[in-house]
Amino acid sequence: MQDAKTIRISLLGCGTVGGGVLRLLKQNSAYLASRVGAPLVVRKVLVRDPTKERDDACERGWVTTSAEEVLSDPELDVLVEVIGGEQDAGALIERALRRGLGVVTANKLLLARRGPELLDLAVQQGTDLAFEASVGGGIPVIRTLREALTSDWVEQLHGIVNGTCNYMLTRMREDGWSFEQALREAQRLGYAEAEPSLDVDGHDAAQKLVVLAMLAFGARVREDKVPTSGIRTLDADDHRFAARLGYRIKHLAVGRDHRDKVELRVHPALVPEGDVLASVSGVLNAIRVEGRALGPCLLSGRGAGAMPTAVSVVADLVDVARARLAGVAGLATRGIQMETREILPLQEVLSSFYLRFPVQDRPGVLAGIASALGAFGISIEQMFQTNPGKGLVDIIMTTHQARWGNLENAMRTIYNYDFIAGDIRFLPILRDESAS
Amino acid sequence: MQDAKTIRISLLGCGTVGGGVLRLLKQNSAYLASRVGAPLVVRKVLVRDPTKERDDACERGWVTTSAEEVLSDPELDVLVEVIGGEQDAGALIERALRRGLGVVTANKLLLARRGPELLDLAVQQGTDLAFEASVGGGIPVIRTLREALTSDWVEQLHGIVNGTCNYMLTRMREDGWSFEQALREAQRLGYAEAEPSLDVDGHDAAQKLVVLAMLAFGARVREDKVPTSGIRTLDADDHRFAARLGYRIKHLAVGRDHRDKVELRVHPALVPEGDVLASVSGVLNAIRVEGRALGPCLLSGRGAGAMPTAVSVVADLVDVARARLAGVAGLATRGIQMETREILPLQEVLSSFYLRFPVQDRPGVLAGIASALGAFGISIEQMFQTNPGKGLVDIIMTTHQARWGNLENAMRTIYNYDFIAGDIRFLPILRDESAS
Repeated sequence: MQDAKTIRISLLGCGTVGGGVLRLLKQNSAYLASRVGAPLVVRKVLVRDPTKERDDACERGWVTTSAEEVLSDPELDVLVEVIGGEQDAGALIERALRRGLGVVTANKLLLARRGPELLDLAVQQGTDLAFEASVGGGIPVIRTLREALTSDWVEQLHGIVNGTCNYMLTRMREDGWSFEQALREAQRLGYAEAEPSLDVDGHDAAQKLVVLAMLAFGARVREDKVPTSGIRTLDADDHRFAARLGYRIKHLAVGRDHRDKVELRVHPALVPEGDVLASVSGVLNAIRVEGRALGPCLLSGRGAGAMPTAVSVVADLVDVARARLAGVAGLATRGIQMETREILPLQEVLSSFYLRFPVQDRPGVLAGIASALGAFGISIEQMFQTNPGKGLVDIIMTTHQARWGNLENAMRTIYNYDFIAGDIRFLPILRDESAS
Repeated sequence: MQDAKTIRISLLGCGTVGGGVLRLLKQNSAYLASRVGAPLVVRKVLVRDPTKERDDACERGWVTTSAEEVLSDPELDVLVEVIGGEQDAGALIERALRRGLGVVTANKLLLARRGPELLDLAVQQGTDLAFEASVGGGIPVIRTLREALTSDWVEQLHGIVNGTCNYMLTRMREDGWSFEQALREAQRLGYAEAEPSLDVDGHDAAQKLVVLAMLAFGARVREDKVPTSGIRTLDADDHRFAARLGYRIKHLAVGRDHRDKVELRVHPALVPEGDVLASVSGVLNAIRVEGRALGPCLLSGRGAGAMPTAVSVVADLVDVARARLAGVAGLATRGIQMETREILPLQEVLSSFYLRFPVQDRPGVLAGIASALGAFGISIEQMFQTNPGKGLVDIIMTTHQARWGNLENAMRTIYNYDFIAGDIRFLPILRDESAS
């Protein structure tokens, strides 16, 4: 075994987050050593292209293109994985855990797909797998769920966990932009990829929700089972209508523990203007956790970006290094219980809704809609109509609480009415949760 | 030494928080044992009045009125202090630390007065002193400052840390109540004491700020050196005027690291309506920390109350118990560096301001105020006047950034003008920090 008074780490990947981690390690080396009880020493940094310009904090001698060289290092203590993706990262992390190394990762995709299995492996091997940076960038939500709420029962959580969607929705609301305009600007600023589906269709948020559900509800669930929708169909009018009703549209990840089943869903929703979540603008993320004893607790901050994410990686690294040095690796993951949980079918979810019907402006239309809703047991809370006299108008409604399946059936019925002039929009409303 | 596979704890105090702790320990005993690695067993509960009705979770056999009996218990591992106050609690905690016991406390007063000294003692004795519950009830702000921001430099923090003030300001704004009305209602609801000075004059917030500054800035400062003001002088008109300008009035604890000195202050301030802090209503607390690398991070939730506070106490208890069991007590406090720091004199603080001048409604008044402000280098950003034609009017202004000392001098000059018809009000404005 190596010198007991040094913790040796290697990085898989040296992109913006990896560079940020190396910079923080360099800038704060003395302080980190005092917190850990020993210096943190970098051994190797795995990269694909060794000729590429790297962060100044990355020394040439560390760089290698050989994963074998990194993983077979007999002196390695902790592996930091910041390459992302499932296959390679998964194989390398698994190998590191099997060797009993500590692992710190920012890889939400891998955790959403293989989190419980890898955590089990870490517990089995008596080592640590830490992943604060996988959800919410620099926001310490994993730590809070894992540690602060140890004695509490997490009843529900609501999160704005995708900064790209939140940025785009903010611009659409504030500047009256279309989805396409907002997307182009997000791409120009580097907030959205050229192929934006992962963000704007909600898959990134669904992956993060699966990771959160693992800790909040002890639920092992499959990402592809989470009902997920994105923000493509929204337009600036929806934002105006929501504002008129006293709401803002946010893209949310929602989780609720029903004991037998777990409710998980990702979609845009109307949030009351007075709710703190409504004020979370731009690329910021926010996650509200509601514990039975704790009540509501909101965490908000930069959900992505090199430095916030790097701060979370280094915080994990300090924990893992410290536990290792003290000979108590695996302490933090011990006792996290997860079991396979069924996801509550979306049709059974209860919610109030925002409805938007593009209709021909003629008598009897409202009566038709109202009676169809009534037939499915859905009652209208308020409604208004736009642009009367122009031939086509929008009828906007909010409903009292209804079963999602009933609402879908009512929408299908109404869609066949001859006065309907386009796609019907319906969005759930976040209610009675404005307490934080 | 006792059986290594049990952690024995005793409580000092069994009020609402103590009762909540015992309830959580009872309800979650199996889960907590799996997280800790050993059962948590209660030995003694110190109370003043043994005849008083206690929480059901408090067993009769535990209750004692003898501090000696609790502290001399040779099998004790961790002491939980929830009696509050400085003298008795301080003496008992010091004695426990000297014995090498772990200590968990919710006592902000004690920490504000003796925190650094007691932390030093804990480090010296190789044991833990944990105090998450001392600030922000169930909000994991201490944990976040201590762990999540390990590699970051905390530049500033802003907190709504007194729920009583926040509740009262919320009612004054929403319902047009006077300070006295809001106070009576807060007292009726149990949010304020019969003698409310600790809350409404800002001392409670100042104590919490001192604890936060200890972790955020590594600053040892004396609570009585923190410039502190409360909410007594505010009235419903101030809330209306602030709203007209696009702000809400919040009672804030503010800290900023100036390297040589540390800026700490407690006072009501105007917060932009779009800022998340503005949406934190009622008894909720919120703390925004800004790290150099992390950017802004906001934590919000119930800042007081038996169960949220108990959740924080039990989270600390799990940490302390786990470290003890693993033979690594003192690990978490290691490396926290604190040094005596001078507080930046309030006169040197830069801020923009809200000003309210009650004046006689006659020509030349505005010119007089404006020229006095100009003479002190203070420039007006916007202004409006109320109720013209009634003899007495209010002139409301906001200023660009100015030095606090200059503003005070200008106010002293203007106060002597013969057209001034009452007390001048000035409040700082929170600016350029609406990012979270």
